[in-house]
Amino acid sequence: MDEFALIRRYFAGLTPDGEGVALGVGDDCALLQPPPGAQIAITCDTLIAGRHFPAETAAFDIGWKALAVNLSDLAAMGARPWTFTLALSLPQADAAWLADFAAGVGALAREAGIALVGGDTTRGPLSITVTALGSVPPGAALRRAGARVGDCICVTGTLGDAALALRRWQAGELPRDDDGRALRARLDRPTPRNAAGLALRGIASAAIDLSDGLAGDLGHVCAASGVGAELELAALPASPAFARGAGSAAAALQLAGGDDYELCVCVPPERLDDARRACAPLALSVVGRIVAEPGLRVRDAGGGIVEHLPQAYRHFP
Amino acid sequence: MDEFALIRRYFAGLTPDGEGVALGVGDDCALLQPPPGAQIAITCDTLIAGRHFPAETAAFDIGWKALAVNLSDLAAMGARPWTFTLALSLPQADAAWLADFAAGVGALAREAGIALVGGDTTRGPLSITVTALGSVPPGAALRRAGARVGDCICVTGTLGDAALALRRWQAGELPRDDDGRALRARLDRPTPRNAAGLALRGIASAAIDLSDGLAGDLGHVCAASGVGAELELAALPASPAFARGAGSAAAALQLAGGDDYELCVCVPPERLDDARRACAPLALSVVGRIVAEPGLRVRDAGGGIVEHLPQAYRHFP
Repeated sequence: MDEFALIRRYFAGLTPDGEGVALGVGDDCALLQPPPGAQIAITCDTLIAGRHFPAETAAFDIGWKALAVNLSDLAAMGARPWTFTLALSLPQADAAWLADFAAGVGALAREAGIALVGGDTTRGPLSITVTALGSVPPGAALRRAGARVGDCICVTGTLGDAALALRRWQAGELPRDDDGRALRARLDRPTPRNAAGLALRGIASAAIDLSDGLAGDLGHVCAASGVGAELELAALPASPAFARGAGSAAAALQLAGGDDYELCVCVPPERLDDARRACAPLALSVVGRIVAEPGLRVRDAGGGIVEHLPQAYRHFP
Repeated sequence: MDEFALIRRYFAGLTPDGEGVALGVGDDCALLQPPPGAQIAITCDTLIAGRHFPAETAAFDIGWKALAVNLSDLAAMGARPWTFTLALSLPQADAAWLADFAAGVGALAREAGIALVGGDTTRGPLSITVTALGSVPPGAALRRAGARVGDCICVTGTLGDAALALRRWQAGELPRDDDGRALRARLDRPTPRNAAGLALRGIASAAIDLSDGLAGDLGHVCAASGVGAELELAALPASPAFARGAGSAAAALQLAGGDDYELCVCVPPERLDDARRACAPLALSVVGRIVAEPGLRVRDAGGGIVEHLPQAYRHFP
């Protein structure tokens, strides 16, 4: 089967002539009609086999995750998902693999209301690059640069699950019970927090999505905002499976494990109730406070400063 | 140096807060302000080392070409280049390589007036995915589907240079003279035909850019338009270097060699003079005619039908 037939067969279902899509896949470009007056948020992330996901990850999950990590960036800006392009490099044209991969992309695309409008399929080592577009009213986007001294630092959901799943899986120690499955689901099919991101517009002063770990990602917010941060280790939200399984690695996994795809938002204390209502039923936990002194300090349960913070994931250390 | 520093150092110069860019690189998303009322054309292409360019291609040229092939898609739609994202996977963080690569991307980006607004850098086999956005007035985009029986089939520039350069280079037979350099330049630094694409709006009935070879790409126009095509082999425009060097491979290289990045446009005969003026000083050559009978026929200099047409490049044959 040639490249064109491949693309037609497996991705045709993902390319509805949706809202704002004047011309879908099949010409030199797709044509989009942006919502009048809206700004366009745009982001681009690559997943590479063996680096961003274990090579043996199911095709459905690879497709899901490639879109999810980009939707998470739109969530962090408070942008409404609109359209995306998908560049897929794969070693051979395996029909079953492609069908599963497209199903995974499609399941999340339909859930998020985002339309595939272009792409490229090439033979090569397995890698996926998605560029996602969202819409946001001018001036309404959540930014990294808005954090103010005194803001509560909040995170959605729970932290560390995906990192624990990855560590256990790679060590051959991931249990085949409910806990193991719950942790694996968080690694393989992260849930981008788009509804929360939209609802937090006008409430949060700053936002970022957690891809590289809270410590490193919060550091970007602090750097952009010219502030510092203090975190309370005991306040970091953990799932039951994580609490049962993380042991002594808990702090490192929650602060620097990465792959959470939760939102970290800064909220003025007087807006905290609004922020919690906006995220509900998703939990929003206060994990620390923005301070004037630059840098990040983490306090343990006794109030003491934790030395030697774990580092965020880096591609070129 | 970490990923973030890498990106900042080498790509900072490519990310001006240009027209329509409300927020550039450095947050979870960039924010774009589309021209009021305009449609957005979007396209996505991947280049993989050893597949889309020889692995020993200079870093500057790889950067240039990765953007050029996407600009060529915008040209084929008659869209004005606006912004792009760039996902770069590379085996190691080599400062000299990255500086040259960014210089190549930047040289063409400045020439085309297109701003880098996002990207991702990961460690992996060398590959580059660009998603490019352009703007076009509603209804004005050039499409594949508009060809009509009787239209002249026209191509810009010359055909076959890049394919001849690649074949000779890989065989170790590319001459180190002016002809060799001229052919190599067409392979390594293709010139996307954006000015011609813009000027042909309202004149051409259909358009496509030539990436996989005239025979295959024209086939997409015919399929989308429900028509057939006849080409005159003797009318295919050739550069002096190509004419001197192609020999008996000329027809195959011009019809199916690929990598031309010229435009193929269909023009009603009464608009041919307008089309030529629109493209000037770039040459626009009439190479055939749209006919009712489906399929592609190629006539040799004697008027006979050429049997066994060479096939277009396919990624998954």
